[in-house]
Amino acid sequence: LQGEAGWGSEQPGMVESVPDFNSFVTRTNTCGELRSAHVGQKVTLYGWVQYQRQGLFLVLRDFQGLTQVIIPQDEAHSHLKELLSSAPLESVVRVTGTVSPRPLGQENPKMPTGDIEVKAETAEILNSCKKLPFEIKDFIKKSEALRMQYRYLDLRSPRLQSALRLRSRLVMSMRQYLCNLHGFVDVETPTLFKRTPGGAKEFLVPSREPGKFYSLPQSPQQFKQLLMVGGLDRYFQVARCYRDEGSRPDRQPEFTQIDIEMSFVDQAGIQRLVEGLLQHSWPEERGSIMTPFPSMTYEEALAEYGTDKPDTRFGMKIVDISDVLRGSGVHFVQNALSYPHGSIRAICIPQGVKYLTNKDLESLKESHCTDHALTFSQEIMEIIRKPDGSLKSLLTKFLGEKEKSELIQALNMQEDDVVLLAAGEHKQCCALGALRLLSANLLEAAGLALRDPTAFHFLWVVDFPLFLPKAENPTELESAHHPFTAPHPSDASLLYSDPTKVRSQHYDLVLNGNEVGGGSIRIHNAEQQRFVLEKVLKEDSEVLSHLIEALELGAPPHGGIALGLDRLISLIVDAPSIRDVIAFPKSFRGRDLMGNAPDYVTPEELEPYHIQVSWPLEEKEAKKN
Amino acid sequence: LQGEAGWGSEQPGMVESVPDFNSFVTRTNTCGELRSAHVGQKVTLYGWVQYQRQGLFLVLRDFQGLTQVIIPQDEAHSHLKELLSSAPLESVVRVTGTVSPRPLGQENPKMPTGDIEVKAETAEILNSCKKLPFEIKDFIKKSEALRMQYRYLDLRSPRLQSALRLRSRLVMSMRQYLCNLHGFVDVETPTLFKRTPGGAKEFLVPSREPGKFYSLPQSPQQFKQLLMVGGLDRYFQVARCYRDEGSRPDRQPEFTQIDIEMSFVDQAGIQRLVEGLLQHSWPEERGSIMTPFPSMTYEEALAEYGTDKPDTRFGMKIVDISDVLRGSGVHFVQNALSYPHGSIRAICIPQGVKYLTNKDLESLKESHCTDHALTFSQEIMEIIRKPDGSLKSLLTKFLGEKEKSELIQALNMQEDDVVLLAAGEHKQCCALGALRLLSANLLEAAGLALRDPTAFHFLWVVDFPLFLPKAENPTELESAHHPFTAPHPSDASLLYSDPTKVRSQHYDLVLNGNEVGGGSIRIHNAEQQRFVLEKVLKEDSEVLSHLIEALELGAPPHGGIALGLDRLISLIVDAPSIRDVIAFPKSFRGRDLMGNAPDYVTPEELEPYHIQVSWPLEEKEAKKN
Repeated sequence: LQGEAGWGSEQPGMVESVPDFNSFVTRTNTCGELRSAHVGQKVTLYGWVQYQRQGLFLVLRDFQGLTQVIIPQDEAHSHLKELLSSAPLESVVRVTGTVSPRPLGQENPKMPTGDIEVKAETAEILNSCKKLPFEIKDFIKKSEALRMQYRYLDLRSPRLQSALRLRSRLVMSMRQYLCNLHGFVDVETPTLFKRTPGGAKEFLVPSREPGKFYSLPQSPQQFKQLLMVGGLDRYFQVARCYRDEGSRPDRQPEFTQIDIEMSFVDQAGIQRLVEGLLQHSWPEERGSIMTPFPSMTYEEALAEYGTDKPDTRFGMKIVDISDVLRGSGVHFVQNALSYPHGSIRAICIPQGVKYLTNKDLESLKESHCTDHALTFSQEIMEIIRKPDGSLKSLLTKFLGEKEKSELIQALNMQEDDVVLLAAGEHKQCCALGALRLLSANLLEAAGLALRDPTAFHFLWVVDFPLFLPKAENPTELESAHHPFTAPHPSDASLLYSDPTKVRSQHYDLVLNGNEVGGGSIRIHNAEQQRFVLEKVLKEDSEVLSHLIEALELGAPPHGGIALGLDRLISLIVDAPSIRDVIAFPKSFRGRDLMGNAPDYVTPEELEPYHIQVSWPLEEKEAKKN
Repeated sequence: LQGEAGWGSEQPGMVESVPDFNSFVTRTNTCGELRSAHVGQKVTLYGWVQYQRQGLFLVLRDFQGLTQVIIPQDEAHSHLKELLSSAPLESVVRVTGTVSPRPLGQENPKMPTGDIEVKAETAEILNSCKKLPFEIKDFIKKSEALRMQYRYLDLRSPRLQSALRLRSRLVMSMRQYLCNLHGFVDVETPTLFKRTPGGAKEFLVPSREPGKFYSLPQSPQQFKQLLMVGGLDRYFQVARCYRDEGSRPDRQPEFTQIDIEMSFVDQAGIQRLVEGLLQHSWPEERGSIMTPFPSMTYEEALAEYGTDKPDTRFGMKIVDISDVLRGSGVHFVQNALSYPHGSIRAICIPQGVKYLTNKDLESLKESHCTDHALTFSQEIMEIIRKPDGSLKSLLTKFLGEKEKSELIQALNMQEDDVVLLAAGEHKQCCALGALRLLSANLLEAAGLALRDPTAFHFLWVVDFPLFLPKAENPTELESAHHPFTAPHPSDASLLYSDPTKVRSQHYDLVLNGNEVGGGSIRIHNAEQQRFVLEKVLKEDSEVLSHLIEALELGAPPHGGIALGLDRLISLIVDAPSIRDVIAFPKSFRGRDLMGNAPDYVTPEELEPYHIQVSWPLEEKEAKKN
């Protein structure tokens, strides 16, 4: 059980005092607080019955820890003994008694309160626990659905207590950094707004005006820019955001971001701010983080890691071996290299021979085929470096000694390493990025220590393209991030001649291979904003007319960032899912399994909103029968 | 212009340092910062052109203040002169120059930077302001609708800058009190939940499951109680809440409350917590507040002030004069007193003869008739105490000298005072509470200093009834606040015998006659909760089964409160409306006049949500034509 760790770990600029958990209530101490120094004190504790043994003692639990309570055995206290012996587990109890040292030899060094026990003198059962639908011990092994249904029981677990308390503390520390140290203003922005162009993932909220809907925005983007136009200078908000993505694992319909915007700032300014912010608020028990964070261009990230969110905790980078193989007579190599962006690339899996089974290797090669449609490349090919230093592959018979040795050198192949090689267009080779991650997981599952589980590798990814071809129609462009992103200063003139080549002033913050933040310097020039919307994106700028007009009326240059708080916290506490750092998460179908939301409402309740349900045909039929 | 005030006013337990507004950007100072001590320094300022005079100087403005910039007149700087002279007002400008003392006699003692000026050396127009749709000077006099449409311009005003910054600072200070000093955990709870019973004011959010809707809760009530069941012990949240009330002046469809819940606490504990919280976070520039706050029962409040949110900044209390008049032969008095709860009550308006016109008095008496349906009482009757000490009233001829002198004494009538008298059932006499406030407004409008505009009178109102008769059917009961409120311990047994007589453990916090908070000790016993829902309120408890089940599985005794942040801040900054302390408020019809929300969406956008618009007949017809 946690609760103490971290409270003493306040950082410079933060209040140093430990909070008083016993103010405003009649308890004298929490269940995690008593030590030998308290011996002889009369104390009153409140907590849950964690354990009770044969009417001799019980263990009382609260958010801060456990205390052993001795049940008196003498006749005068028979009522008390009866009371405490019969209290079901998880009942809520008040106990008053005297702190005593545990008998010699019975101390429990694993328990912070293990040197003492409390001899009960009076007690009250404040709420008796009915029969639990399962044993708490089993509960932790039960399905996540059951644990979400009884979320209030799961919340009593040290795991969730610790995650939620760390989250609260970290956000508080972030606020202190932003507000108290750097003059940011915490401004709340509306969540009932209107549909943004292309906002297909926005929930709708019917209004009382017929046919008119609010929408729940995916971020306060427009509002934070308008705050800059309004001269707020430095804004932040711990902002609730909404995204209706239907069923996607590990996404939540509502989520939280640390939303930041500054005037008169450039990309480097925002980066230094965020580095300082994270360094300031980083929980001491998770080590410290070094700043500045390394930076990598989008191009580099794609070339070396096959993704725009590289996990830089380990190597196995993608290597371009086109030049090594260019001279070989291998047909698929020649074919690939004949295309404009054709290349041959590879990753080297260290000790792959030892740690990967043949089945592993097959599954790796197959996952590649299913995940990515390859237009003209061969399938993935493997090359093994045998203990004698020689190479084993279908390819080797086509390679000369020079090529083999260059290959070994380019990939730094050691004995027992396995190389996976792909040929194809630049983008398809990037699929090696997914193989790199899969291989790493397989290696670790087999026992190779590849990534330090306590390491936190932050990385800036910069110089994204401003526009990308639309998936459904590659001759049209869409914003790589959003239409308010400013072009890279070096590429500003390209905007009008060749928008596909324009890099943006967008930056992503990546932590251990996860995107934990993204932001940009924004367009502050109304003409440029109108050009992007109308000429490049071919969108109706009318719906954003208020924003464009605002840019015309004294908008300062500005930029910002949003950090995904749920993801960030889940990485810090090493939780498998963001659901583990949210008090009341939705299931992956967007349901609240405890309260049963969403739920049916009556037609009368819909009336004021001028809407009715269009029942799908099959349900209509079912209702008839 | 504000910005400096208050930053130095950190309270004990808070970080003492002044924030660095110039970190991460290339400005050296804000426009409110330079003093004589800076003379000789080379500075870079960013701001808006507030004023420009004949190419000689301009005044640059940012969130923190104003700085006078001298435009060089020599030939070498002709380009700079041209640039700065031609920049339209409200353009965004960077200026670099040297701080100089103002020439003797030209200092401006009203301006914090009035001892200095900055001699411009270089400058850049970062964004030229297009023609404003109105002059900024006129703008402040324009309609609120126009100011809401151009909210980003209004946000540049000292009034809104100051309100939003004070709000941010106050909330930060509250967080420090709760988190750092008293161990509260900031927990975010969902806003996509399900309809609560009787939740007619909850917005609905269609889900992708046909016929199923989320709703946006009016408060995190259920979740905060479940957090207590989950052992969080002390929770708070600056919570966004939603309420769809259609058009009601000075209500917002989304609003913010400081939401607090504690385990193992009683009413006094919550009250001390809130008093400490407000005292800690109170802005120094608004004076200090004394604790503990006075307390008054609901009965007393109704009897003496005719309302459950008394404005205690002034007297004019309602006085029961039934006993004084009981012996008189006045018919309406006898009639009123013959009813079980009949009484004669009055308020005394000091100096009413001097400060109120006859028209005022007529309007007072009329407002009473329109506001409150009187079943059997006479209209309001007035009694004047003339300068010679005698009474003037339609009533006087029926009163003996003894009765007259007792009346004068009971109401403490001075010369020129006016008494308004009402006869009727207890409740109807309470309508005198509204007259008391109206009279106070009229007296003040006429120049009598009745209420100290800088005074803050906090008041606890306690011992509310637990249930009230339903307005539409007085034989049925509804919760006075909500069904989770615990009965008063002294009245617990009455719950089962005569629920109408049960007082609750609800408490309201009132400030200067406005309700700024409300809370209660909650029911933690499942049986009692079920009894209240099923037997007293006759509601289907099934929809709250998760909460009742939670109470069975180890729920601690708990209670809490919610403070209405928007209202509280508006009172602190003396703003006429909560819209003045919200960055982007909705109009009283719930519209965002800047972005035009809510708005129409296409039928295709509604499809994933299985809903369609039921157009009212007239609009259907209009669409056809």
